[in-house]
Amino acid sequence: MKKVYFFGKNRADGDASLRNLLGGKGANLHEMTRLGMPVPAGFTISTEVCREYSNIKRYPDGLKEEVIENLKKVESVRGRKFGDPENPLLVSVRSGARVSMPGMMDTILNVGLNKQTVVGLVNRGQNPGFAYDCERRLIQMYGGVVLGISEKQFEDLLVAKKKERGVLKDTELTAEDWVELIGQYKSVVSDFTYKDFPSDPWEQLWGAISAVFDSWNNKRAIEYRRLYDIPDDWGTAVNVQAMVYGNNGKTSATGVAFTRNPATGENVFYGEWLLDAQGEDVVAGIRTPCPINIAQKKNSGPPSLEEEMPDTYLQLLEIRKKLEHHYSDMQDIEFTVEQGNLWILQTRRGKRTSLAAVRIVVNMVEEKLITKEEAILRISPEDIDTLLHPMLDPRVNYDVIAMGLPASPGAASGEVVFTPEDAVALKEQGRKSILVRMETSPEDIAGMGVCEGILTQHGGITSHAAVVARGMGKPCVVGCESISIDYKHQKFRAKDLVVKKGDIITIGGGTGRVILGDVPKVSASRSEKFDKLLTFANEVKKLGIRANADTPESARVSREFGAEGIGLCRTEHMFFGEDRIRAVREMILADTLEQRKHALDKLLPVQKEDFKEILREMHDLPVIIRTLDPPLHEFLPKGSKQVKELAKEMGISEKMIRDKIVLLSEINPMLGNRGCRLGIPYPEITEMQARAIFEATCELIQENLNIIPEVMVPLVAEAKEFENQKKIIDQVAQEVMKKYGVNFKYTVGTMIELPRAALTADKIARTAEFFSYGTNDLTQTTFGFSRDDIGKILPDYVDKGILKWDPFQRIDEDGVGELIKIGIERGKRTNPKLEIGICGEHGGEPHSIEFCHRVGMNYVSCSPYRVPIARLAAAQAVIKEKGGSNETL
Amino acid sequence: MKKVYFFGKNRADGDASLRNLLGGKGANLHEMTRLGMPVPAGFTISTEVCREYSNIKRYPDGLKEEVIENLKKVESVRGRKFGDPENPLLVSVRSGARVSMPGMMDTILNVGLNKQTVVGLVNRGQNPGFAYDCERRLIQMYGGVVLGISEKQFEDLLVAKKKERGVLKDTELTAEDWVELIGQYKSVVSDFTYKDFPSDPWEQLWGAISAVFDSWNNKRAIEYRRLYDIPDDWGTAVNVQAMVYGNNGKTSATGVAFTRNPATGENVFYGEWLLDAQGEDVVAGIRTPCPINIAQKKNSGPPSLEEEMPDTYLQLLEIRKKLEHHYSDMQDIEFTVEQGNLWILQTRRGKRTSLAAVRIVVNMVEEKLITKEEAILRISPEDIDTLLHPMLDPRVNYDVIAMGLPASPGAASGEVVFTPEDAVALKEQGRKSILVRMETSPEDIAGMGVCEGILTQHGGITSHAAVVARGMGKPCVVGCESISIDYKHQKFRAKDLVVKKGDIITIGGGTGRVILGDVPKVSASRSEKFDKLLTFANEVKKLGIRANADTPESARVSREFGAEGIGLCRTEHMFFGEDRIRAVREMILADTLEQRKHALDKLLPVQKEDFKEILREMHDLPVIIRTLDPPLHEFLPKGSKQVKELAKEMGISEKMIRDKIVLLSEINPMLGNRGCRLGIPYPEITEMQARAIFEATCELIQENLNIIPEVMVPLVAEAKEFENQKKIIDQVAQEVMKKYGVNFKYTVGTMIELPRAALTADKIARTAEFFSYGTNDLTQTTFGFSRDDIGKILPDYVDKGILKWDPFQRIDEDGVGELIKIGIERGKRTNPKLEIGICGEHGGEPHSIEFCHRVGMNYVSCSPYRVPIARLAAAQAVIKEKGGSNETL
Repeated sequence: MKKVYFFGKNRADGDASLRNLLGGKGANLHEMTRLGMPVPAGFTISTEVCREYSNIKRYPDGLKEEVIENLKKVESVRGRKFGDPENPLLVSVRSGARVSMPGMMDTILNVGLNKQTVVGLVNRGQNPGFAYDCERRLIQMYGGVVLGISEKQFEDLLVAKKKERGVLKDTELTAEDWVELIGQYKSVVSDFTYKDFPSDPWEQLWGAISAVFDSWNNKRAIEYRRLYDIPDDWGTAVNVQAMVYGNNGKTSATGVAFTRNPATGENVFYGEWLLDAQGEDVVAGIRTPCPINIAQKKNSGPPSLEEEMPDTYLQLLEIRKKLEHHYSDMQDIEFTVEQGNLWILQTRRGKRTSLAAVRIVVNMVEEKLITKEEAILRISPEDIDTLLHPMLDPRVNYDVIAMGLPASPGAASGEVVFTPEDAVALKEQGRKSILVRMETSPEDIAGMGVCEGILTQHGGITSHAAVVARGMGKPCVVGCESISIDYKHQKFRAKDLVVKKGDIITIGGGTGRVILGDVPKVSASRSEKFDKLLTFANEVKKLGIRANADTPESARVSREFGAEGIGLCRTEHMFFGEDRIRAVREMILADTLEQRKHALDKLLPVQKEDFKEILREMHDLPVIIRTLDPPLHEFLPKGSKQVKELAKEMGISEKMIRDKIVLLSEINPMLGNRGCRLGIPYPEITEMQARAIFEATCELIQENLNIIPEVMVPLVAEAKEFENQKKIIDQVAQEVMKKYGVNFKYTVGTMIELPRAALTADKIARTAEFFSYGTNDLTQTTFGFSRDDIGKILPDYVDKGILKWDPFQRIDEDGVGELIKIGIERGKRTNPKLEIGICGEHGGEPHSIEFCHRVGMNYVSCSPYRVPIARLAAAQAVIKEKGGSNETL
Repeated sequence: MKKVYFFGKNRADGDASLRNLLGGKGANLHEMTRLGMPVPAGFTISTEVCREYSNIKRYPDGLKEEVIENLKKVESVRGRKFGDPENPLLVSVRSGARVSMPGMMDTILNVGLNKQTVVGLVNRGQNPGFAYDCERRLIQMYGGVVLGISEKQFEDLLVAKKKERGVLKDTELTAEDWVELIGQYKSVVSDFTYKDFPSDPWEQLWGAISAVFDSWNNKRAIEYRRLYDIPDDWGTAVNVQAMVYGNNGKTSATGVAFTRNPATGENVFYGEWLLDAQGEDVVAGIRTPCPINIAQKKNSGPPSLEEEMPDTYLQLLEIRKKLEHHYSDMQDIEFTVEQGNLWILQTRRGKRTSLAAVRIVVNMVEEKLITKEEAILRISPEDIDTLLHPMLDPRVNYDVIAMGLPASPGAASGEVVFTPEDAVALKEQGRKSILVRMETSPEDIAGMGVCEGILTQHGGITSHAAVVARGMGKPCVVGCESISIDYKHQKFRAKDLVVKKGDIITIGGGTGRVILGDVPKVSASRSEKFDKLLTFANEVKKLGIRANADTPESARVSREFGAEGIGLCRTEHMFFGEDRIRAVREMILADTLEQRKHALDKLLPVQKEDFKEILREMHDLPVIIRTLDPPLHEFLPKGSKQVKELAKEMGISEKMIRDKIVLLSEINPMLGNRGCRLGIPYPEITEMQARAIFEATCELIQENLNIIPEVMVPLVAEAKEFENQKKIIDQVAQEVMKKYGVNFKYTVGTMIELPRAALTADKIARTAEFFSYGTNDLTQTTFGFSRDDIGKILPDYVDKGILKWDPFQRIDEDGVGELIKIGIERGKRTNPKLEIGICGEHGGEPHSIEFCHRVGMNYVSCSPYRVPIARLAAAQAVIKEKGGSNETL
């Protein structure tokens, strides 16, 4: 098995396809060499060696010989010899894993320098100050990385020396100063290790290689891998490469360039450079780098590379073009000019903003550099999310006072309020608020509508607050268990801080951050390119994308974002308006069928109007309206003041209301009297809702609109429950058609949100025309996890590796997914035309969307602001199914 | 298609196998005729005709001809002619469905009598009074059944006539009286129908046949069928049979006999008879019937048939023997002696008490009349239940003041108490109590232990009260929503009654009845025969039968009833004793690991003692002990007084306790932080429990006992949860073995009580050694029904036919059963040796046990008092699988 791969002078043992074996950096060095680019010669020790080294705790047999042999090739290409006092070859030793892990592992430069070779360097015409500085740097890096000596000891000596010499910059020190420092540095080393600093270049080289391999298992690298889900057994490669110097006089330089603008995505060459400097100087920010070209140079300012070294610049432009065509992606290039010679030290995929990412891929499609499929695969759903919502400015520092669950993306600031009434009051004064609640209930809806963002102490990402906030496209952090709210004194505690009503806070709903004060934000930016990308997605995707929307406004937004219908229109939120909650309460408190019908008669016209506006917005597109779902007691007043008011208003005793509340209360409301379990004992409720839907339909058809209503029955566990409700709905449809003299098409289907519904899908599909998976509830019952209570369990479970992620966020394929597959298979067996979708929160989560595509659903439905993400994810699912991969992005 | 089946004089078209076609009564008449028994000739119109008649609303073509033809055969056998004024044939017209529906459908006797034929009867030597009485009876029955005239009108006339004549008995009326009455009866008919009473015998016959067919769809028959789950399309047959008369002078008689004693099951001929009487006279109770033989006659008393008609008696004895051998079951025979000739009018399976049922089948096995398998199939689980618990005396009348769910069988009476403390206080005074609660919680356990029975207003049959009561073998009625308890005033309301503390009530736990006052009871009666039957069951059954037991006492009872191990020993009930609840609360309130360990150290010795006593009782048998399952907050005090006491006792602030209660409280506790979700964050709890189990094991092994502990982890949804807990248990096992120097065998398994556990059983089975289906919880999550709240939904669902039964009582094969099958299939795929059982309440329900057998479980586990039932049901399952059926019992 080959262990070491040589590259140099247009010849390379490896290429870009060997990323797994040679690491990302190494593979690209080999590839660029093959492309004839000026890459300093070197060799790569493979990741397999790293794995073997980790296992057997020593180098595999034969490695030494291969390293010696390849170093000879480098010497030959470079025309210098390693350890030669006359004309010494110096090398860098760098790590390079399959994926970039910036700053995680170690690098050692100038390996091969010692008392003898440094003289050779000087004799070959180098500036003595430069040569000794190089030796000093070697000792410092090697001391730190290989020997484990704190770099501060070296830095302190350097600072003292500059003070002694009365100079500010390193470059002002003389060769003598460096020689003195080298002596001091070596003392530090021998004091620490009880040994002299190794002067043998080979000892240096092997020490450096070992240090790089060992760095794969250092603490920060392990943590990084855990964070980014990188397998421990990938290992790192080691790149040993001839040194070139940008800090070698006025014809030397160093720089970093992007083949396109990484902030905007514009197709212009973009970068920075420094004359007579080393690569780290550009990064470290000690000197301010200069723009790479005239275009980038704003009017006056420091000279550009284009002006100072026009030939080199042209050569770079050529390389830019070649690399972009070759890699068909925006590249991040490191280069060094050593005494007039351009060297390329690295190329890799350039990091970019979300805005740039979208622009780049769309441009590249137009430039025919990449296909639409490639463009789609390269954009992450997070990119889309970023572009749709204002975000915390990443350049600003702030203190996070608490972390909750990221429930609805976007950043928002405002005054803390603890009641929906206060949020409304502030809004009326033109002031911004953040509504802070233990948890929210449908009664809080008005306040939720007017605040800037919502923060709750309890609840998971499918809690009421989260669902409603996403529907409104409003930032929201939930389950922030580290704060403790004191409603009575209108304050909350976070760590040692007390935040009072009126204090300003900022929340980051995409990350779960809570910050004291007003943090600057980057605003949302949908562009023409963004829309174009989503047009590509639509050409590729097979899943339909619908929205969960229950107001005309959210229906309008959904449609604008490209929703192809409404997958879930909840009817219960409509019941909370001032004009209707009273009738709803009358309905619930009714003792007789007559009383109840009387209350329902009042609700009919308002529900009809609600449906009419939504159906009108969505004309030509299907709209699934779900019949009443939540337990009735949710509509009853909670506090004693409210009970009193209601009693007075309705002219009944407080006791009667209290009794009804007790009667309706349940020990486990999630498993209680809700969904179709309301419409079965009280058929008149279903009847009223069906009538409202169908009368709205008829009236819009009379306006010559094409209306496609679909009625959905919730919480079905047994086919007969569905049949019971469908019979009512069908009968009302007939009556309404007759009344209006209008024929319309409609369908009746059901939520599949209980395990039993999935298991008996064959029976339900005998009469149901569509299934919509309610994966929030399905996840609750499949796991036996209450979404309201999971916050206490989940973090510990993820820590202990019991669950990989929150199953309410990303679908649990092993359990819930199995039930979904069973339901689809059984449902389609009975009715091959059955339309199947998902309307749980997973409908907007990319991994879950991919799953929905794979199992053959017809559509996903998600909150309006996630529709673009869902379109992209649905297209990615198609491409991945064909073998496409975005693994290396 | 043959419509009419003749029988008479040893020749019959049908036989007993044609029960579906000829009805039970008809098929047996055919069969007895074939056996050469003296059955009056007749014919049966098949149930197919009934179905066709119901569908097409008229008689099928050809029926008339077949009836005429068959009636001719009857005339020929009987030597009389239908409608012949000289020697008239009279017939009875009776219904007879596939199963007996006593009193549900109609009968008409003496069809064929009119002004002419009655004279023929008299001329052929009959007593004129008898002949005219027959005609009078025909008009009365026909008027009622066919014409729909209230029988009271006829009765009133008869009473008036007797008054007029100054006599008391019908038999004292003369022929003239009867003729006068016949005139009056006919007037009633013509007044009501505006037509004369039909004098044409054929019109009478067809009218009677139609009336019988129509009676299949009368209201009370439909209700009866719904109650006993009899399909509407079975239809009834009609039996037309030559009349014979037991009221035809001093050589005539009528009687009913059982081939064995139906009350005790003793193998003696048992029956009653009346001289010169009709069958209905025996049943109606106007005259007191006489014993059939000398053995039955107690010392003095009315003469027996054996004495009065010794030849007939011998003939009957012969028939008894023949029928029992032929049907191999105890028979209920109706006979008539007409002028010295014995006629058999009916034979059918004799109804019997549970006690008799068991004795009869065991005796019949010993007599080699039936096989053990037949014996097993013939006993219903309800029979067993009756024999194990005292029951309300069926002969006593009482008023039911409320009905609840039958949660634990047996009848009990006592003073009403509303608190467990009062129950304990009464017990100390030697008084009996019925504990009446809204619902019970583990804190009530002491009171539940000492009362006679438990009644709760809320909760289903798997609620806490129900589960605990069954474990204690104590009568219990739950979910009695029609009472309303007022704790404050120590009373409850039922209908218009107020029942106060101290009032005596009786509950029937097998039926759900609540009765005011002390109702006499029939005591439980296990017998030698009972044990023998269960020995037969053990020879046949394949399922193991274990018990759910968590005290030494219930372990002892289980073993006595034949349990082959403990399938579920809950550990949480043990936490409520006076000596330990304090340590439990300390554990829960602990802020640090150290505090918690300190509390657990106090619990370890008491838990160890608990386990030791149970394991000792069950030596040589496996005992599954489940680690802690319920949410921790259940252990915290509920009322403010209790909080105060606890705070004082523990020297912490009340606020701290209240805060902890709030912190631990959950919106849906059933889906919350329980089961292994306790042992994962607090491994020290699992550790303590494992240590207690294994130390108890070691100490008993040192006493030379064979102990087989099995540790069960509850509420697993994901294999890694189980692995986490198993690791702790295994480690403790190693430690304990080392400490004691004792090696022991043990297994670790899990409950399968969440859909996800069943769906991912393949993964869980990689490390689990056994599965135990927790079907209570699995039913909750599969249906999304809370067992605590289902009481409000279920009755309506059963009424509407949405569910056929309570899925918490009888396993839902379509949904929960599917998951069970999936779990077994996937689990065994990974680990073919996996031991699989059930420990939910379904483990004691016969239909569910049959299901468990069919799907290949290894054992079922149920409450101790259901072990005998489970043994029987498990044996029945095996026999039914081979094609055995107890459908017609």
